[in-house]
Amino acid sequence: MPEPARIGLLGRGTVGSAFHDLLAERAGAVEAASGHRPEISGVLRRDQGDFERILAGSDLIVELIGGLEPAREYVLAALRAGKPVVTANKQLVAQHGDELFAAAREAGVQLRFEASVAGAVPVIRVVQESLGTIELERISGIVNGTTNFILSEMTSTGASYGDALARAQELGYAEADPTDDVNGADAAAKMAILARLAFHTSVHLDDVSYEGITEIRPDDIAYARELGLSLKLLGIAERREGGISVRVFPCFLLSGHPLAPIEGSFNAITVEAPAITEITMSGPGAGGIETASAVLSDVVSILAGEAPVHSPGRSLEILHDLDSSFYLHLEVADRPGVLASIAEVLGRNGLSVRSVVQRGTGSEARLVMVTHPAPESDFYAALDEISELDFLRAAPRAIRVIEEEYR
Amino acid sequence: MPEPARIGLLGRGTVGSAFHDLLAERAGAVEAASGHRPEISGVLRRDQGDFERILAGSDLIVELIGGLEPAREYVLAALRAGKPVVTANKQLVAQHGDELFAAAREAGVQLRFEASVAGAVPVIRVVQESLGTIELERISGIVNGTTNFILSEMTSTGASYGDALARAQELGYAEADPTDDVNGADAAAKMAILARLAFHTSVHLDDVSYEGITEIRPDDIAYARELGLSLKLLGIAERREGGISVRVFPCFLLSGHPLAPIEGSFNAITVEAPAITEITMSGPGAGGIETASAVLSDVVSILAGEAPVHSPGRSLEILHDLDSSFYLHLEVADRPGVLASIAEVLGRNGLSVRSVVQRGTGSEARLVMVTHPAPESDFYAALDEISELDFLRAAPRAIRVIEEEYR
Repeated sequence: MPEPARIGLLGRGTVGSAFHDLLAERAGAVEAASGHRPEISGVLRRDQGDFERILAGSDLIVELIGGLEPAREYVLAALRAGKPVVTANKQLVAQHGDELFAAAREAGVQLRFEASVAGAVPVIRVVQESLGTIELERISGIVNGTTNFILSEMTSTGASYGDALARAQELGYAEADPTDDVNGADAAAKMAILARLAFHTSVHLDDVSYEGITEIRPDDIAYARELGLSLKLLGIAERREGGISVRVFPCFLLSGHPLAPIEGSFNAITVEAPAITEITMSGPGAGGIETASAVLSDVVSILAGEAPVHSPGRSLEILHDLDSSFYLHLEVADRPGVLASIAEVLGRNGLSVRSVVQRGTGSEARLVMVTHPAPESDFYAALDEISELDFLRAAPRAIRVIEEEYR
Repeated sequence: MPEPARIGLLGRGTVGSAFHDLLAERAGAVEAASGHRPEISGVLRRDQGDFERILAGSDLIVELIGGLEPAREYVLAALRAGKPVVTANKQLVAQHGDELFAAAREAGVQLRFEASVAGAVPVIRVVQESLGTIELERISGIVNGTTNFILSEMTSTGASYGDALARAQELGYAEADPTDDVNGADAAAKMAILARLAFHTSVHLDDVSYEGITEIRPDDIAYARELGLSLKLLGIAERREGGISVRVFPCFLLSGHPLAPIEGSFNAITVEAPAITEITMSGPGAGGIETASAVLSDVVSILAGEAPVHSPGRSLEILHDLDSSFYLHLEVADRPGVLASIAEVLGRNGLSVRSVVQRGTGSEARLVMVTHPAPESDFYAALDEISELDFLRAAPRAIRVIEEEYR
C-alpha cells in the first residue's frame, strides 16, 4: 500500500461526518501507529460522487451508507478489486456475511466491521482476535441501547412502555420509527454476527429467533423485583448439544448476573468459556463519535498490517427448542382450586415451580411464579392449556428467566 | 516463519503447565487461525534445559518464569536474536519496559504481554490496538484480585482485614506472603504498563505512587456505606494539566461508578475519552488457565501476522500532587467546639466539606466527613494539624473518594 493511504468514504451522514472529522484530528496518531498518513480520496454522497472513480483512487473503502443495497454491491466490488473494506453495517454483515467473507477470502483482503456491534466497545476484535482460538460456550449481550434505555426507564419510574418509548424518542435514544429496535430485529442482526465469529460457523439473520419488548408491562417489572430479578432484552448465542442456538428475548436476570447492572442506553456483552471463565465488556452502544472511533480502529488495523480473515470453518446446527425457566404472571378468580388446577397443568407438561407469589386483589388474585428449566415447547404447551382455563381473568404473561449463577 | 511454528517455553509452573496443555488442546484452532501448526520445541525448567539451545531451535519464545532475572536476560537475548517474545511478567515490563521495547523495535519483532494485566481480560490488546489512536483521558482499574476479594469479604461479612486475608489465603486468592498484593505494589506494576500504552510515554514502576489496604477497618466501610459509597483498591492513570499521574490507593466509589459492582477476585478496567465515552472490561484477574489463554492469544497474533510494536513516542511529565476528595474519620471527645475547631483547620487549608455524619458513643463522638476536591498536599497538611488537636482520641483515618458521576 503506497504512502499516504487513500481512503474512499461511502456515506456522509452522522457517522460518516464524525469519522471524517476524527480521521483529520487523529491523522498524526494514525501515521504513528500504521506508518501511513491517511487522506480521504473521495466521498460518495446520495446525490454526489461516482463510486467507480472513488474505488479506483482508493487503497481502502469505508462503507457508512447503511442499508442492504447499494451497500452490498459497493462492498463486493471493492473486495473483488482487492481493496480492504471497513463497514459499520450490521444488516449487511448479518444478511450477506457468507457472500462478503467469501469475496474477502478469495481476494485475500480484510473486511472489518467493529462498528457493527456495540459501537466503540471492541467486542468484534476481542471475540475474533483475543478469543479466536478459545472454544467459546456462550455470548450474552445487551446489544440494543434503545430497548435497554426503555426498560431502565420503566424500572426506575414505573412508566408504561409507551411513555418510556416517548421519553427515549425525546432524548434521542429512539428513532421516530423505532420498530427494528423494539421488536428485537436490530439485536438479532448483531447476535447473528457475534455467533458467526464465536462459533466459526455460518449464521444468517434468519437463523435468529427474536422477540421484542412491546408487550412488557410495568407490573411485570415490579413483581419480578420482589423476586430479586431485573429485566433486560438479551441476545444469547450458545453452544448446545447438537449445535448452537441464537436468540433474542426479554428476560429476567438474577442480581449476580454480570449484565444485571447495565442501565440506560449502554450495551454490554459477556463471553463465557472454561478457559476464560467469563469476560464482560460494556460501554455506549451507539453515537456518531463512538461508532466513528470503532471505524477508525479498523482502518488503523488494516493500514498497520494483516489480521485473519473470517472463515466459517464448520457448519453447526442451529437449535431452537431449548430448556428455559419462565416467569409466569396470571390474573385469576380468587376461589378455591385455582392453584391446584394450574399446578396440575404444569405438572402434566413436565414443568415444576421454583417460587410463587400469590396476592389477592378483591375478587381476583394474581399468581406470579418462576418455573425450573424445561423444554420451551413443553412450557408453551402448558401455557396454551392455562389460557383456556375458565377462571383466568386476562391473558397469561410469560417471560424467560436466566438462572445461571455467576461468580 | 517456517511451518510448523516452534515455540520455546521458559518456565513450567502453574501458568506454564496450563499453557502447555491449552496449546496441545487448541493446536488445530491455532493452525486454522494462523496457518502454522504450533509445537513446543523445548521447555526450560529451573533445573533442566539449556536456554541457548532452546532459543536456537525456536521461532518464538514464551517467558513464564517470572521475576526480574534471568527473565530479563532471556527476553532480551531472544529479541536481539530476532525472535518474537510473549511474556506474562508484569514486573519485567513495568521495570524494564524501555529496554525491552527498544530491543524489540530495533530487531523489528513483536513483544506481547497480554497476560501481564488482568489475566484473560484482553485489556492490553484493546488499549494498544482498538484504542491506540484515540487520545485517552483516564484508565481506572481494579487490577489486583486478592485485595478486591479481601475488601468484598470485609464489606459483606464485616470481617476485619486480618480475618478477610486469612479467608483469602484459605481459598487460594492470596499467597502465603501477600505483601506485594496488599501493599499495592502488584497493582502499581500493572498500572505502569497500562499508563505506558494509554499515553504513549515511558512509565516505570517507580513513577507510580501506591498505597495498600492493610490499614482499612471494617467500620470505615460500614460508615461509608451510609453515604452510598463502596470501597475498592483502585489504580488510576490519567492525563492532567502538565502531564500524567499514575496512582494506586484504596478509595470509595459512588454507586453509579462502572467499577462499583466488581466483587470478589474479579478484575475490571474502565477507559475514558471523549471519542469513546467510557468502556469497561471485567473478568477473572488471574488463574492458571485464564492467564494461559491470554498467552495463547498473543502467540496466535504473532503467528498470524504483524502488529504494531509499542513505541513511547513522547515523554510526558508524571504528576503527583493532584486534587482529591477525601473521606475523613475522626474519633473525638464529645464536647462543645470540636466540630468548629476541625472546620477551622480545614477552612484555613482551603478545604470544604461536602457531607458530615456525627455520632455520639458515650463520652466520645465520631465525625465522618467527605471533603470537596482540593490539592492532596493541602489535605495532608490539614490532616497533620488535626492529628495534633488535643481532643482527638485516635489517629484520624483518611481515604480518597472518587467523585466522578458516571452516566
